[in-house]
Amino acid sequence: MIKYTNMDELKAFNALKALKDEVVLKDVMAGEKGAERVEKYKVSMSGGLLFSYAAKQVDDKVIDTLQAFADEAMLTDKYAALYNGEIVNTGERRRVLHQLTRGQLGEDVVIDGVNKREFYVSQQNRIKEFADKVHNGEIVNEKGEKFTTAVQIGIGGSDLGPRAMYIALENWAKKNGCFKMEAKFISNVDPDDAAGVLKGIDVAHSIFILVSKSGTTLETLTNESFVKDALKKQELDPSKHMIAVTSATSPLAGNSDYLDAFFMDDFIGGRYSSTSSVGGAILSLAFGPDIFARFLNGAAEEDKLSKNTDIRKNPAMLDALIGVYERNVLDMATTAVLPYSQALSRFPAHLQQLDMESNGKSVNREGKPVSYKTGPVIFGEPGTNGQHSFYQLLHQGTDIIPLQFIGFKDSQLETDVNIEDSTSQQKLKANVVAQIVAFALGMDNDNPNKYFEGNRPSSIILGDKLTPEALGAILAHFENKVMFQGFAWNLNSFDQEGVQLGKVLAKKVLSGNTFGALKAYSYLLGI
Amino acid sequence: MIKYTNMDELKAFNALKALKDEVVLKDVMAGEKGAERVEKYKVSMSGGLLFSYAAKQVDDKVIDTLQAFADEAMLTDKYAALYNGEIVNTGERRRVLHQLTRGQLGEDVVIDGVNKREFYVSQQNRIKEFADKVHNGEIVNEKGEKFTTAVQIGIGGSDLGPRAMYIALENWAKKNGCFKMEAKFISNVDPDDAAGVLKGIDVAHSIFILVSKSGTTLETLTNESFVKDALKKQELDPSKHMIAVTSATSPLAGNSDYLDAFFMDDFIGGRYSSTSSVGGAILSLAFGPDIFARFLNGAAEEDKLSKNTDIRKNPAMLDALIGVYERNVLDMATTAVLPYSQALSRFPAHLQQLDMESNGKSVNREGKPVSYKTGPVIFGEPGTNGQHSFYQLLHQGTDIIPLQFIGFKDSQLETDVNIEDSTSQQKLKANVVAQIVAFALGMDNDNPNKYFEGNRPSSIILGDKLTPEALGAILAHFENKVMFQGFAWNLNSFDQEGVQLGKVLAKKVLSGNTFGALKAYSYLLGI
Repeated sequence: MIKYTNMDELKAFNALKALKDEVVLKDVMAGEKGAERVEKYKVSMSGGLLFSYAAKQVDDKVIDTLQAFADEAMLTDKYAALYNGEIVNTGERRRVLHQLTRGQLGEDVVIDGVNKREFYVSQQNRIKEFADKVHNGEIVNEKGEKFTTAVQIGIGGSDLGPRAMYIALENWAKKNGCFKMEAKFISNVDPDDAAGVLKGIDVAHSIFILVSKSGTTLETLTNESFVKDALKKQELDPSKHMIAVTSATSPLAGNSDYLDAFFMDDFIGGRYSSTSSVGGAILSLAFGPDIFARFLNGAAEEDKLSKNTDIRKNPAMLDALIGVYERNVLDMATTAVLPYSQALSRFPAHLQQLDMESNGKSVNREGKPVSYKTGPVIFGEPGTNGQHSFYQLLHQGTDIIPLQFIGFKDSQLETDVNIEDSTSQQKLKANVVAQIVAFALGMDNDNPNKYFEGNRPSSIILGDKLTPEALGAILAHFENKVMFQGFAWNLNSFDQEGVQLGKVLAKKVLSGNTFGALKAYSYLLGI
Repeated sequence: MIKYTNMDELKAFNALKALKDEVVLKDVMAGEKGAERVEKYKVSMSGGLLFSYAAKQVDDKVIDTLQAFADEAMLTDKYAALYNGEIVNTGERRRVLHQLTRGQLGEDVVIDGVNKREFYVSQQNRIKEFADKVHNGEIVNEKGEKFTTAVQIGIGGSDLGPRAMYIALENWAKKNGCFKMEAKFISNVDPDDAAGVLKGIDVAHSIFILVSKSGTTLETLTNESFVKDALKKQELDPSKHMIAVTSATSPLAGNSDYLDAFFMDDFIGGRYSSTSSVGGAILSLAFGPDIFARFLNGAAEEDKLSKNTDIRKNPAMLDALIGVYERNVLDMATTAVLPYSQALSRFPAHLQQLDMESNGKSVNREGKPVSYKTGPVIFGEPGTNGQHSFYQLLHQGTDIIPLQFIGFKDSQLETDVNIEDSTSQQKLKANVVAQIVAFALGMDNDNPNKYFEGNRPSSIILGDKLTPEALGAILAHFENKVMFQGFAWNLNSFDQEGVQLGKVLAKKVLSGNTFGALKAYSYLLGI
């Protein structure tokens, strides 16, 4: 029987609080002890990746206590409850089944006679067939010409995840001969977004993917109209240029306005939908269904690792609880995500949604206020760019920001130059290594401007190359990290009631039926 | 005589601390009182903009105390000292003259016989001549064909600011018939960045702008080699395709490897260089010199407003001190920048550098540790996209994040659709209005999942349209805000010693002469 308990009622959390000053990185990472830590504090991930946490403020005692925390909070049991189809989205009374889009982890989940794993696979197969037909010229535009561009119309999880994944694999696909079509994305209700994208593409050879689970997302429907207008202006039939990704019960399903429709359902949250049809349609069109399948495999393997009750063999759970230690014991309010890979340039933006929308909550899963801090602010940009931007504050600012690095041995395109006896890729890697150590050890200096206090914790996910498998593993790692943190904080990580009030008030403003501050601001903005 | 004092020694700061619970937004913004606040708490900016701070936790008493703070800390005197050429960059013993790139605010600043204002104008004029010749076909490629693309090679301030400004005006320029050339940017030492950009452009018709003040930035020189290789592979002469933006004393100046070189100097910090030749070359090539001049005018007018000793008439100083109140009295650690304009999609990334690199410091301008918090973490994405991402945490998370909105009455491209009785632009504006009020007032609800506590402060910069003048005003507003906050915290906001240690260690890693953690991580990453 699983027990759901607020974190401050856990014995292990109180034991953890007693370990506040346990590890001083400046000491333990210095000299050969540092090398021993790097060797010791690492764990394998799927996709050939490694999670290295030597530069976190942990030692065996802290990790043993995190293990006790994981056991007492029954974290892997709660994970099993989730993938076996219990209603863990307590607010909306829904199951949470995104792991089933990429593999079967436990029992069959059958709802209203439908095996959900089979349902998600069937959609993936339908997308495969459709994408193959687009690629081989069976599905073409009105003039019988091949489509060259796929444009996703969606917002939030229908945009950020798929966009980040596309950018992550675009160059890899070009290098490896599996780049099929260019992808573009329209998301913002700002009319300059759609108009700007449409200016830059060949509309007559573009296929548009309308993505909305409910089929009622106002921004997305507005942008659909925008696109339909553009098609009609070129005397093109929108229904020959559009597909829908939606739920089977939405107004977009079985609708002759679309060439075809592919489905997800209520058990796939927007921010967890990159491995469902939401990511599947655009990524299969861009890179081919086989590449999308490899991406899913990477995620599925990582999901399996997350079942491990031994925290030292469960990178997502370990990462999650180190994060809880930093947030609730060491009192750190933000986390920076720093990929040393230009291909991951929009991955931090996806993580912002994934993490902040899941765990930015003040009430527990039963709706009772919690008395501890929950999800941190997430931000980040790729290195080395960030080094020439906000790293000053990370090194010498008055707050300590935990850092999440990501790095790879090899670049994706494998084009490089040798300057001053090293390649660009070697310089890139040397920089991430240097940063980890600089943050941990700091540097004494008689000039206080050049003094670095050190003791600034970081971890790194590293691998050979950013392949589809590696990307799937990284995505699933963070999804599962966020899930485990939500369990630790006793939250419902799967609803987002905090976005509703703005929607309601925006409608009021548009109706003109306002007074007070709403009316005064409306006047200032000329609404 | 200007006195430089740590903030905690100011009488006014201690008075401010006593006002911690002065304003409850939920009360003061409700009903018609809210409308009165919106009417009262606003101040004009240049470029036709308005800074509205009604939804900040201030009242007349707080603002009077901020005025006393500004007076006691002599903020406008320090600003005058800066633009009159005193050595305010105390660490590097340098003047700080970026305001002179766009106007003359005080006395002539003459150094080694050179009037610096005249020097910056002369460089702007040289860029104008050059850009005009590129546009009218006097400067062409080796085959006598016009250049169609300009590619900036730079990192940090040579990338983030100019890139954000280019994206901000790209659609406006297209709409207004002054779009001359497409611009691209190569920044990261990750070889996939340069390789990816080069794959997407017509190299034979591209002009490359190498930007490095010292002429020794390793990332930038590496990317220059990358580009030269690409040119040579097409049997093109790099010296016919490249210009340099650098200091007059750098190895890039007077160098026959470049078609021409344009200069800034040591008194223009990278993150403050968008209005110097660093932004001037790329923006003049992309949009024409006249548009760049209009952008400078917007900034210059805003700089003048920052001279006002009356805080109620000085938007940058007001914004700055409200930020200090939030950071040091209300204990808020981060700030979100939320432009309701897709054109400003990369403006938050620029502000990250501007703010966090300037004020992410733990020692004062004399190198003594300060005992209060300094620069916050800055992050942000455009609305309405952010609403479908991290706004959940902003509304219902356990930390309060002050918000900086930006919005405009009209879109740039003026293409729009009407859905459900409103245009996209109206929906966009209705959303920002709704968010301001939702954050301030919150909403009661018996369902604790749907309860919004409110009391979450925000301000908004608003205007008619994002024009070159408006963009200049917004840029200068934030530059001056950061400057005033640096003065308030008694910091040197103009050096960045925190980025040096990483550079030193990276060189060590590349030399292979390492031990301990550096060596162990190098092994893991295959260096």
